[in-house]
Amino acid sequence: MTEHTVKSYGEELAHLTAEVTRMGGIAESQVADCIAAIARRDGPLAQAVVAGDERLDTLQSEIERKAFRLIALRQPMAVDLRHAVAALKISMSLERCGDMAKNIGKRALILTEADPMSALTRSIERMGKLVQGRLKDVLDAYTTSDLQRAIGVWSRDEEVDEHYNAIFRELLTYMMGDPRTINACTHLLFVAKNLERIGDHATNIAEIIHFELTGEELTSQRPKLDVLSQ
Amino acid sequence: MTEHTVKSYGEELAHLTAEVTRMGGIAESQVADCIAAIARRDGPLAQAVVAGDERLDTLQSEIERKAFRLIALRQPMAVDLRHAVAALKISMSLERCGDMAKNIGKRALILTEADPMSALTRSIERMGKLVQGRLKDVLDAYTTSDLQRAIGVWSRDEEVDEHYNAIFRELLTYMMGDPRTINACTHLLFVAKNLERIGDHATNIAEIIHFELTGEELTSQRPKLDVLSQ
Repeated sequence: MTEHTVKSYGEELAHLTAEVTRMGGIAESQVADCIAAIARRDGPLAQAVVAGDERLDTLQSEIERKAFRLIALRQPMAVDLRHAVAALKISMSLERCGDMAKNIGKRALILTEADPMSALTRSIERMGKLVQGRLKDVLDAYTTSDLQRAIGVWSRDEEVDEHYNAIFRELLTYMMGDPRTINACTHLLFVAKNLERIGDHATNIAEIIHFELTGEELTSQRPKLDVLSQ
Repeated sequence: MTEHTVKSYGEELAHLTAEVTRMGGIAESQVADCIAAIARRDGPLAQAVVAGDERLDTLQSEIERKAFRLIALRQPMAVDLRHAVAALKISMSLERCGDMAKNIGKRALILTEADPMSALTRSIERMGKLVQGRLKDVLDAYTTSDLQRAIGVWSRDEEVDEHYNAIFRELLTYMMGDPRTINACTHLLFVAKNLERIGDHATNIAEIIHFELTGEELTSQRPKLDVLSQ
């Protein structure tokens, strides 16, 4: 293709999808790093996560601008429109995952100055690995247009909620047993909540992929514990 | 206009904007009601908020579908595209405000069974009124395309953060003073966090309006306290 060739719709769409995939890779790393920063009490890594979030914001703005332009100028119909809308919506979800990783990074920084709470931190790390795995799986499903894999992520939504509920109880017990830990524990509580929300985004991305590939909603019978998700 | 007249782009856009405005009214009520449910320990009102959220979800889906169709079929340029994109993005923000109001409603239900904590509840109520006012102002700005009013909301972003920080400290003191209140206090902590996030959405909507009306971003010099917003 020469420099002056006008790109086809298919090419522009492939470019957009590739950018979302790349953004997904960065979001995945940010999530992995913020969990490691909590687990290892690693201040510099936490700082890197906080600083790295801007890149996701910039990528999201660019994807959004390109997606709307593509939709507005190219008049895509049916399945092509679904691809462009999916790219846009997934980038929005990833940008929010990045915000949560940044927030966890900030809390990791604060927690390096508190006494270690190893048992709690290990629980958080386990939950983090689970959430990280869900995000990886759903991004794999997006990259390979793998409907079954997306449905798999969606149907295992409950696991994260169970972890969150267990950690919530663990934190309450800890705080009541030693009120001096309350401040640090509230940070871990928000870390767990942010991880739960990243898990919700993985579910949300699975739903977006399902609609992209089939044109049908996947929202009716999702198993969902009531954990006051927010 | 007869039934069979094909609607003009302007008419479709006006219809979309009207639906966003209506959705804004419902979101405003949901936010007001969940705050009242916390303040008055009003179980039935809390239940109504929880049940009422579905309506916002449905409206958001409809607005999203219509906005993408409008953008894809009508090939709007420049300012018209900005109007349609703003409607879409504001509806997304309002849907999330609704999720937070629902979450506060669920916590209000739980708190009706705990001992009253009047001082804390009053602080939450004051913060709630502030956030509610910001949401109202920014929706007024949207309805009347009032740029200055939107900028006003945006520039007062700091007030909510200050309230959140004060409530956070108040809650810590309370929990340390009487560890039996820890469970109830963690619910209030999440209520305050959700209110803070509704306040952030008001700021976000102000930025969307600014871009809609001017074509320029309003993100550079926003005054922002670091309150670990998330």
